Amino acid sequence: MVEITIPGQLFKIKWFMDLLYIHSCHKTQESLLTSTSGFNNYRGVLNWCVVMLVLSNARLFLENLLRYGVLVDPVQVISLFLNDPYSWPAACLINNFVFLNIHFENHFRMSSGKQKGSFSELVGFLVHCINFALMLTFPAAVVLLVPSVTPVGGAFVLGSYTILFLKLYSYKDVNLWCRELSTVKAKKLAGHINSHTQTLNGGDRKVCYPGNLTIRDMYYFVFAPTLCYELNFPRSSTIRMSFLLRRLFEMLFFIQLLVGLTQQWMIPVIQSSMKPLEDMDLSRMTERLLRLAVPNHLLWLIFFYWFFHSSMNFTAELLRFGDRQFYKDWWNSETVTYFWQNWNIPVHKWCLRHFYKPLLRRGFSKIISQSAVFFLSAFFHEYLVSVPLRMFRLWAFTGMMAQLPLAWFVGNFLRGNYGNAAVWMSLIIGQPFAVLMYVHDYYVLHYREEAQ
Amino acid sequence: MVEITIPGQLFKIKWFMDLLYIHSCHKTQESLLTSTSGFNNYRGVLNWCVVMLVLSNARLFLENLLRYGVLVDPVQVISLFLNDPYSWPAACLINNFVFLNIHFENHFRMSSGKQKGSFSELVGFLVHCINFALMLTFPAAVVLLVPSVTPVGGAFVLGSYTILFLKLYSYKDVNLWCRELSTVKAKKLAGHINSHTQTLNGGDRKVCYPGNLTIRDMYYFVFAPTLCYELNFPRSSTIRMSFLLRRLFEMLFFIQLLVGLTQQWMIPVIQSSMKPLEDMDLSRMTERLLRLAVPNHLLWLIFFYWFFHSSMNFTAELLRFGDRQFYKDWWNSETVTYFWQNWNIPVHKWCLRHFYKPLLRRGFSKIISQSAVFFLSAFFHEYLVSVPLRMFRLWAFTGMMAQLPLAWFVGNFLRGNYGNAAVWMSLIIGQPFAVLMYVHDYYVLHYREEAQ
Repeated sequence: MVEITIPGQLFKIKWFMDLLYIHSCHKTQESLLTSTSGFNNYRGVLNWCVVMLVLSNARLFLENLLRYGVLVDPVQVISLFLNDPYSWPAACLINNFVFLNIHFENHFRMSSGKQKGSFSELVGFLVHCINFALMLTFPAAVVLLVPSVTPVGGAFVLGSYTILFLKLYSYKDVNLWCRELSTVKAKKLAGHINSHTQTLNGGDRKVCYPGNLTIRDMYYFVFAPTLCYELNFPRSSTIRMSFLLRRLFEMLFFIQLLVGLTQQWMIPVIQSSMKPLEDMDLSRMTERLLRLAVPNHLLWLIFFYWFFHSSMNFTAELLRFGDRQFYKDWWNSETVTYFWQNWNIPVHKWCLRHFYKPLLRRGFSKIISQSAVFFLSAFFHEYLVSVPLRMFRLWAFTGMMAQLPLAWFVGNFLRGNYGNAAVWMSLIIGQPFAVLMYVHDYYVLHYREEAQ
Repeated sequence: MVEITIPGQLFKIKWFMDLLYIHSCHKTQESLLTSTSGFNNYRGVLNWCVVMLVLSNARLFLENLLRYGVLVDPVQVISLFLNDPYSWPAACLINNFVFLNIHFENHFRMSSGKQKGSFSELVGFLVHCINFALMLTFPAAVVLLVPSVTPVGGAFVLGSYTILFLKLYSYKDVNLWCRELSTVKAKKLAGHINSHTQTLNGGDRKVCYPGNLTIRDMYYFVFAPTLCYELNFPRSSTIRMSFLLRRLFEMLFFIQLLVGLTQQWMIPVIQSSMKPLEDMDLSRMTERLLRLAVPNHLLWLIFFYWFFHSSMNFTAELLRFGDRQFYKDWWNSETVTYFWQNWNIPVHKWCLRHFYKPLLRRGFSKIISQSAVFFLSAFFHEYLVSVPLRMFRLWAFTGMMAQLPLAWFVGNFLRGNYGNAAVWMSLIIGQPFAVLMYVHDYYVLHYREEAQ
């Protein structure tokens, strides 16, 4: 710093430079939030959202803990599946297991039988129909008629049978297609297509029909994390131990978290909603609905991660199953259709391959076929909820069918982030609405009668 | 679609193409959430955050309404300013107005007197000191001693006086600098700088010292939305009517919202916090603190927009004041220092020009000068809170001084989004903490004694 000595006063060049500031302290400019300023950096707002969400939920968690104490009780979970631990479980499991095996064998024998020409396509078709009908009706009948089946246990059994139903339907379809392809009449046309396929798939050793009709192949498909049968699944070369253990840890951790959060957060809110629901107090019902929305949504997100990421990847890694696309980026979906096409890829793939495309081939229009897919989905949603609860209220069915007008509305009127927000809103609000409806009806049916 | 008729069966080319799908239904790929997938599009998560925040707060709002009913009462606001509407307001306002004018006149006469050489710099300095001391002590004494002054009214009066104090201090400083620049001894050096300045500012007609020493110029500065005096403020060419009306509408709307939210949300939460605070029940205190954090933070955000955007832009537009930079992008701040430098630009500018830089010129180190600025800020925060509440607890002072170690910690250990989140956290949690402390002490002082 250059110092210039002037008699009586010591001035510094820097200070004179600062004095310039007297004249240039202000300059003409707009505020950042004024629309004409052109400023649009709101990076910090995302962090604000995250901090606010964490703090609000920390508060809710603490309030919950102070009001109800610790409600988490892992042992209680067992009672959800079993009413009476001494009479039921063995019978149920054996019945279940035996029944599943009979189905496998039926299927297997039918497929090989047809291959060997021991019975005609028509007879095979009828036997298949009977078998599929039994697969859906027999467990439903057991759940409805045996009083010791709990709702959770029933839903679990029906869920397993539904998955098996979808798998075996795919198994039947693919084998049928293979037979059609291998008929003498079609061979001419199929010839170059088959060779084309083999070129596409590279030089791996491939199983060809009817070489796939083995018990081993069928059981692999039943346990593989997919609903669509294929003669040659892509396989990964090794089982990565660290990946497997990480997924196993996640599975164990998230299932505990799911049970804990349900006991600690979900059940108290549902219980406290019964009174307003019974009185049909609209504003209190809305308040309870919004209160239920947060834990319900959180549980759904955890369930999604637990089932579609941890569990399915664990199974896939164990079976060296190569295709790990169990979900796509549904969190970015800007239309309802995109969400339903991307959140559950195994079911979506099945619907596309064994229901939507066959319908199109039979000459139905796109919109009819799409509606039919939603109808089928609505049927299974209702089946998996109504039968275990032993009451038929059609809330799940209505909820799924309501997706059609919702998809139309969002697709036509909302774009980009608004569409995305609408999809999230329907997820966050729609689910607890259906849950409250069922719980209310269940409560009225079982507990109000007792109270009277 | 080309149809090839084969005896007995109708095949479609398209169907054969679909059959290819049997073989290529799955392919080897990773799940999106697996870290090795390379997927990182989580756009939808921001929308999720927004939807969750809106829904959670809608729930809180509804719960609040159901619990307390409508508490908003605009008339009640008047009682915050006036204890006894019939004796106090006239006296207070006249006193206020007269007192302000006396200060203006004093200042004006002193500045012009010194210019005319009617009294020396030393006498002028002493008179200034007395005047500034009176400006802070007289209203404080009135607020402390006159029992009919309410806390809100007192804070309002002290706030006005503090703003005036800062403005007149700047006025004095700038005129002093101008006198120093115009002394014969400094003229040589200042010559080319002045000409440089005039070139910089373009060809506008400029006021030069002592041409600025008019009552009109002083009153313009007193009402202008800045704390730093300048001889030639940048001016906008016209008053944009639509801009003015929009800002006026915002002012009226947000002040109503502020009052309404305080009555409906803030006060019930504070009242329900008194019991846990009195009992020193730590977990319940934390729960109340987090419960208070949300409305407190929301009010602060609304206050920020109302004061720094709507009101200041309104005043600036009315006075054709050109510099609208009343805040910068503090919401993106990744360090505590950045936040304090950017959220309140008028005060920051004043501190920099009239306190921090003069300290640096006197040879103090950067860190000492910075701490001194925080100390000054802490003093005024305490002054504006303690005097109207008539109790000296140093919570506001401690809160401001705690920014120094916090700034050090965030600056050294947290980067990017983590730093930003830490700044938000300190804002969201720090403020309600101080508010609860004061309210608790005020409650203990005034109401517990009555109860005993």
